[in-house]
Amino acid sequence: MRAVDLIRKKRDSGEHSRDEIAFLVASYTRGEIPEYQMSAWLMAAWLRGLNRAEITFLTEAMLHSGEVLDLSDIPGQKVDKHSTGGVGDKTSLILAPIVAAGGLTVPMISGRGLGHTGGTLDKLEAISGFNTSLTLEEFRRVLRTCGMGLIGQTAEIAPADKKIYALRDATGTVENIGLICASIMSKKMAEGLDALVLDVKTGSGAFMKRKEDAEALAEVMVETGQRMGKRVVALITDMGQPLGRMAGHSNEIRECLEVLSGSGPADLRELSIELSAWMFFLGGKTSDVAAGRELASGLIASGAAFQKFRQVVELQGGDVRVIDEPQRLAQARSAAHVTSSGSGFVASINCENLGTALAILGGGRATKEDRIDHAVGLEFHQRVGSRVEKGQPLATIHYNADAMLAEAGALIAASYEISAEPPKSIPPLILRVIGGSES
Amino acid sequence: MRAVDLIRKKRDSGEHSRDEIAFLVASYTRGEIPEYQMSAWLMAAWLRGLNRAEITFLTEAMLHSGEVLDLSDIPGQKVDKHSTGGVGDKTSLILAPIVAAGGLTVPMISGRGLGHTGGTLDKLEAISGFNTSLTLEEFRRVLRTCGMGLIGQTAEIAPADKKIYALRDATGTVENIGLICASIMSKKMAEGLDALVLDVKTGSGAFMKRKEDAEALAEVMVETGQRMGKRVVALITDMGQPLGRMAGHSNEIRECLEVLSGSGPADLRELSIELSAWMFFLGGKTSDVAAGRELASGLIASGAAFQKFRQVVELQGGDVRVIDEPQRLAQARSAAHVTSSGSGFVASINCENLGTALAILGGGRATKEDRIDHAVGLEFHQRVGSRVEKGQPLATIHYNADAMLAEAGALIAASYEISAEPPKSIPPLILRVIGGSES
Repeated sequence: MRAVDLIRKKRDSGEHSRDEIAFLVASYTRGEIPEYQMSAWLMAAWLRGLNRAEITFLTEAMLHSGEVLDLSDIPGQKVDKHSTGGVGDKTSLILAPIVAAGGLTVPMISGRGLGHTGGTLDKLEAISGFNTSLTLEEFRRVLRTCGMGLIGQTAEIAPADKKIYALRDATGTVENIGLICASIMSKKMAEGLDALVLDVKTGSGAFMKRKEDAEALAEVMVETGQRMGKRVVALITDMGQPLGRMAGHSNEIRECLEVLSGSGPADLRELSIELSAWMFFLGGKTSDVAAGRELASGLIASGAAFQKFRQVVELQGGDVRVIDEPQRLAQARSAAHVTSSGSGFVASINCENLGTALAILGGGRATKEDRIDHAVGLEFHQRVGSRVEKGQPLATIHYNADAMLAEAGALIAASYEISAEPPKSIPPLILRVIGGSES
Repeated sequence: MRAVDLIRKKRDSGEHSRDEIAFLVASYTRGEIPEYQMSAWLMAAWLRGLNRAEITFLTEAMLHSGEVLDLSDIPGQKVDKHSTGGVGDKTSLILAPIVAAGGLTVPMISGRGLGHTGGTLDKLEAISGFNTSLTLEEFRRVLRTCGMGLIGQTAEIAPADKKIYALRDATGTVENIGLICASIMSKKMAEGLDALVLDVKTGSGAFMKRKEDAEALAEVMVETGQRMGKRVVALITDMGQPLGRMAGHSNEIRECLEVLSGSGPADLRELSIELSAWMFFLGGKTSDVAAGRELASGLIASGAAFQKFRQVVELQGGDVRVIDEPQRLAQARSAAHVTSSGSGFVASINCENLGTALAILGGGRATKEDRIDHAVGLEFHQRVGSRVEKGQPLATIHYNADAMLAEAGALIAASYEISAEPPKSIPPLILRVIGGSES
């Protein structure tokens, strides 16, 4: 088999066999196919598309480029959640303790933030000492002890994905449903899961701005997971405005602790419970999703989820004092308001720009090498549809570097569209479920 | 300007500016854009296409990646011909002496054969001592002395083309009209020409098998040349069967000498005179193409073209004795006939397979590194439409390696389709002229 023939085949809209895709991925990962051939194939695949079977073959090939966790020695069902990312999206840190407290195992391998989106690992590292770089052996021990663990991608997990993603990033071949699906699903399937709940975001703060694109990606991911023998559903959820009131790393840990304590903003609580409920249902813990919601709410009310979070922080070396005293988390030196330039209703929010403003303040990365300031953050006071008066605060900026304030402030101010009339409709937080019914 | 943005632009069907294409080509040639980005752009360009302006920009950028000959100190118009290649296509060695004998300058920079096609340089090297690797200074001296010169591409000429072509070959991005045009025209324009005649072949032995594809390529090349201020026409000519009776390097030199002596096969003579006539007309030597034909025929009849060939062989270090004694050219040890398996008419010839059979015998290259056996060759006895009887020779194989005879013979035998009825129509040798009228 020759790479050039496979490139020509995809260029001419041909369909690859499992063997062909396995050859391409394995040979590229071993360095036997040069980058210039892989990038030509990626562009051909981007433009000609990959069908459902090819996407599954690609996912499998990327999965088997590295280690697949075998957690069969740990009792119970292994379930996880993956989000396509957004602004203020911190549900992982809430639902993992809920679901682990409910008796399932959550072997969560997460990523870092890039561009306007945050990443779970970065948020955890706002807790002093929290070690997200456990070896797979240590990870396994933490999972066995407390039913959850939170680490970053290791070199052993889907190395093909790391190598292919870097190439896609440099060659304009990122935004393709098949390639995105294979990248996400190969890493998640490496966790040795029984079931997976996908949170596919849409709206101004999501990668998939249009609902149709989010649905298409969700359908492909659900089908790929199911073809690989897993129970998978996807929730299409709104990212037309930030999730919760907080963005920024220390800020978000604080808000998670609020929700785990039974308070916190309603939208964040609702989505965390909904995702937990689907995890309970798919993991066989409850006979329907409604029972899953009750179980999740109960585990918050009893304090069991909060104690589970305390346990995992301790097991992974984090400073547990922050759990009870969140003021110990890094705090920015200064704060400033962004106020409304007029009176009326918040008609829309450019949520991506809010994420970009946070990154400008130092709370995000333009490139993978950038360091993050965990202390800086944004606090959002108004949601879409809110009535605001001229001069009323829309958001508060928690910042350290004075030099960045003006740029971030202007971007935030411009992100809020104020209209005389209230918006005709506001999308619900949970738009649709793909791949599952509630019982 | 960033390469990834240009890749994305072409991926999304955008149109590049002159500056964008110049940046891409210059940066890639200097090694500042990695191969994996260039190959992704090439695939995007292959699939999305390049418009006429972009093709001209690409040709110009590749041309200016290297040296452009300035032949203004040599008097008279500089004209050349380029053929897209075929089997038995040896007109360069006939028309260059004709046109130089007629008073124009022919600064011919040629290529080598690859796959089923032959190359002018390889054919010249069948003449012992003939040096196709002159420096540009030596080339200039030869041109000034005899009005023609025949060399290979030097490192100074369009280095971008060499680098891009190697990448296209490895990434399935060869067969695209815009990229083919830029590759051909950037090299030809580097010769410092005033006018160019293109021989764009179509049929079973051509790269462009379908007439529409050949016409599309011809139109793009003519327009590109004209946009660059040159006089350019293209003849669409039939390569549904070999040109002349001979293929193979020594064989073809012999056949050229026959035509230059006033004999030789009619088709080869006709096409050589036709191409010469267009060169005379575009070079301002005659007021119409008909007068060009007369001039060309006269230069053969007078022996002036033959003497011009002798002169260039001598100036470029070749053994001039072969001019009068062609039997001095390398000859294969053995000969064998391929005979007709039935009686009827030659309905069609798979001309590409004949070229491949020659390469199998050692008279062509599968890869650029292969060495060529100048002595081996094929002699064709039947043309499309000929009446043949069972057992009558279709072709004669002149070979050295017994081991290759069976494979080559079977391929040749299978290339001739014999029917009970004569073919309904046989395409004329010259199908169409694009970009010019006869006066």
